[in-house]
Amino acid sequence: MSIEKWGLHELTLTGPSEGNPFADVEFQVSYQFRNRMVTVDGFYDGDGVYRARFSPDREGEWSYITSSSAPELDGQCGTFVCSPPGPGNHGPVDVLGKHHFSYTDGTRYDCVGTTCYHWTYETKELQELTLESLRSAPFDKVRMCLLPTDGMRPERTPFAGNTPGSVDVERYDPEFFRHFESRVADLLALGIQADLILFHPYDRGVWGFDRMSPAQDAAYLRYVVARLAAYRNVWWSLSNEYDFNHEKTIADWDRLLQLVQRYDPYQRLRSIHNGTKMYEVFTPYDFGKPWITHQSVQHWDGAEVASWRDCPKPVVIDEIGYEGNAGRRWGNLTADEMVHRFWQGMALGGYVGHGESFVDRETRAWISIGGRLYGDSPERIDFLRAVFAGLPRQSDGEVDADRCVLHYLGDRQPSAVELDLPDGSPFHFDLIDTRAMTITPLAEYSGPSHIPLPATPYLALRGTR
Amino acid sequence: MSIEKWGLHELTLTGPSEGNPFADVEFQVSYQFRNRMVTVDGFYDGDGVYRARFSPDREGEWSYITSSSAPELDGQCGTFVCSPPGPGNHGPVDVLGKHHFSYTDGTRYDCVGTTCYHWTYETKELQELTLESLRSAPFDKVRMCLLPTDGMRPERTPFAGNTPGSVDVERYDPEFFRHFESRVADLLALGIQADLILFHPYDRGVWGFDRMSPAQDAAYLRYVVARLAAYRNVWWSLSNEYDFNHEKTIADWDRLLQLVQRYDPYQRLRSIHNGTKMYEVFTPYDFGKPWITHQSVQHWDGAEVASWRDCPKPVVIDEIGYEGNAGRRWGNLTADEMVHRFWQGMALGGYVGHGESFVDRETRAWISIGGRLYGDSPERIDFLRAVFAGLPRQSDGEVDADRCVLHYLGDRQPSAVELDLPDGSPFHFDLIDTRAMTITPLAEYSGPSHIPLPATPYLALRGTR
Repeated sequence: MSIEKWGLHELTLTGPSEGNPFADVEFQVSYQFRNRMVTVDGFYDGDGVYRARFSPDREGEWSYITSSSAPELDGQCGTFVCSPPGPGNHGPVDVLGKHHFSYTDGTRYDCVGTTCYHWTYETKELQELTLESLRSAPFDKVRMCLLPTDGMRPERTPFAGNTPGSVDVERYDPEFFRHFESRVADLLALGIQADLILFHPYDRGVWGFDRMSPAQDAAYLRYVVARLAAYRNVWWSLSNEYDFNHEKTIADWDRLLQLVQRYDPYQRLRSIHNGTKMYEVFTPYDFGKPWITHQSVQHWDGAEVASWRDCPKPVVIDEIGYEGNAGRRWGNLTADEMVHRFWQGMALGGYVGHGESFVDRETRAWISIGGRLYGDSPERIDFLRAVFAGLPRQSDGEVDADRCVLHYLGDRQPSAVELDLPDGSPFHFDLIDTRAMTITPLAEYSGPSHIPLPATPYLALRGTR
Repeated sequence: MSIEKWGLHELTLTGPSEGNPFADVEFQVSYQFRNRMVTVDGFYDGDGVYRARFSPDREGEWSYITSSSAPELDGQCGTFVCSPPGPGNHGPVDVLGKHHFSYTDGTRYDCVGTTCYHWTYETKELQELTLESLRSAPFDKVRMCLLPTDGMRPERTPFAGNTPGSVDVERYDPEFFRHFESRVADLLALGIQADLILFHPYDRGVWGFDRMSPAQDAAYLRYVVARLAAYRNVWWSLSNEYDFNHEKTIADWDRLLQLVQRYDPYQRLRSIHNGTKMYEVFTPYDFGKPWITHQSVQHWDGAEVASWRDCPKPVVIDEIGYEGNAGRRWGNLTADEMVHRFWQGMALGGYVGHGESFVDRETRAWISIGGRLYGDSPERIDFLRAVFAGLPRQSDGEVDADRCVLHYLGDRQPSAVELDLPDGSPFHFDLIDTRAMTITPLAEYSGPSHIPLPATPYLALRGTR
């Protein structure tokens, strides 16, 4: 049996099904490669079936041995061979330097995300349409929720039961997870990271998932991590708009983030996302805390990236407003404004996420359910992605200032710009029209330079040498 | 002899020319109509000539008598008849209710201003071009400076002398003022208010006009008021960007504003204009002080009008950014953005001023020198002006909410808007495209209403019944 590096090894055993096996049975597996040992939690998958999942990070022969409070699950052992990664498998995404990301094998990761909160809850046809849309879209990350909102009445939830009031939050629904995992795997096949949102404030006590006891929260997180952490495209977003959940304090979020940190053998990327209303003062979670790997920000102003970079972690504005025609402020940006915000944030060394909220088309609100994309921004974001992918970088992921300068000029229309370029060999400048998606060679400049511009908004200047 | 109501009566006498007549000679004239008496300061106009100017506000026979420290100027008396106002003469502009303006005869005053700081300092040809541009532009107020900036080397300044370092700030240049007054009269003929900026911070000690002694400041203000207050289109803007002048304190500005209040027999509109940098926190002068008639604001965000209306005085955003292609942030707005800011501010019951700063055309930077207008915003501002002029108003100038609702929808593109209209007889709605300058009838609505929209930015809804 052979598993590719960063692939997924799954062990299946049979054990007790009486009582509450989710809570009653301890089951772990220790995997060993030479002197490296990794212990993972297994999980109950219903009908007396227990599984453990493991993603190996070394090529060669691995062995494993189980340990359990249930005799049938204890002391089982075996081996498998970890083979070289297959085509397109670059490993999980990690932080590069202070403010950037990279696949583990060193391949560039662009971090151009989008959001489809509950796409896995929709009809099979709609889910497949979402995947089809993602296949031709420029996005390499999707934010998505495990838990339903107060108004949803899905066939299945992560917990046992599908009716508010009669859900058992100490048992899980294996069928829900098997489906959810298959969608995570579908994203992986498309080269897309699954930024999994573990809690959200849109429950308001209806299901009760936003106000479980600390022990129930911990058991839920442990079960989710046991099932999903081995998928190499998984990121953990502890909560969406955590500050809108008045049932939990910052100390609660600290504790839950630390639990994920402890349960997850791979240390997948981990953050928490604020919801403080746009146009109010933004007081973010302290992303400096050691269990946070990157800053998952909601804010409307890409220019703020400059200040957030004071914290030595990547800045990802996962919500900066959505292109669309919704009634709410966050959901009716023009494509011009959406793409403007991308350029602002990315030119300052941050990352920005897309979203779309057209409410009167065949499929509604991409950010909620996926479906089709109707906006004009994805094409321009694809252009932006190509421009940024082409910039020369230092080993820490920063644009190499010795070889390249990039100035985004914003929504204004100055007839010229003054740049104080380094002396020495000149930079060859190109004019990038981010709206028309054109790149036009200009001239060479070095030292203090006056660069004439066509007076039109949404331009960028790129100088390379 | 007959002077129209709100016109200008000028009395000319001859007196001493030795010493410094500007400082040495006290000269006042008391005008009387029945039991109403108004005393005005006269002024020395050079070459032994003294004048006094008076703008009568009652029709009928007025008498006057002079008083002076110089015997030749003392005890002179006479009469004149004040006739009904001529065509187009609606009197000076006054505050109406808390937040609006009106001509004294009750005619609507729109308050759609622009800025040409130093147009009167330019060549005769350019000044006439500016007047020609204003004739076909939608603006009814011009902000303009009396004092030159540090970099200007004009033939004349308000003070005696035209070379930095050799100006006598205790003597004035009557020829400068005669010319300046003729331009104020030219604006009056066009129905345009002259918002006269008495100080500014762009001197930096070069001329020394920004750091005169309290007595010199007071004498300057008294001379300016004596010469100019009788022009019924004059407004006083004590300073532009007062907070950039570090030679003066708030207490100084308080004192100088109170001096203008004391000197001016007509109580022309009076304010002071901040310069706190855009995109920093804005801490305005306390416009609640009794010598302030209206709030002359510099700020980039028309949406702030709502909060400024807490102060019971009209809000006039005299600088909200300029259409153009200048290198500086304040001077390179697109027409879309400029007009968007107008609609934002005016829909909230404020007033907004225009400016233009194209730096590479035949005549440079309208805000500095006047000349030609090149932008696309004036035409759209004219359209806006017509829309606002057509709204039914209460006696205090507010839009009459019983008969009319106006919602500006901004730079977003919602596909519908929910309005909670009053019950009762329905409102007939029109869709206003502020960019295309079109008005399209929609349907009738009352009570809670869902109004579909074409998903495009820069729309407004007007409902009337």
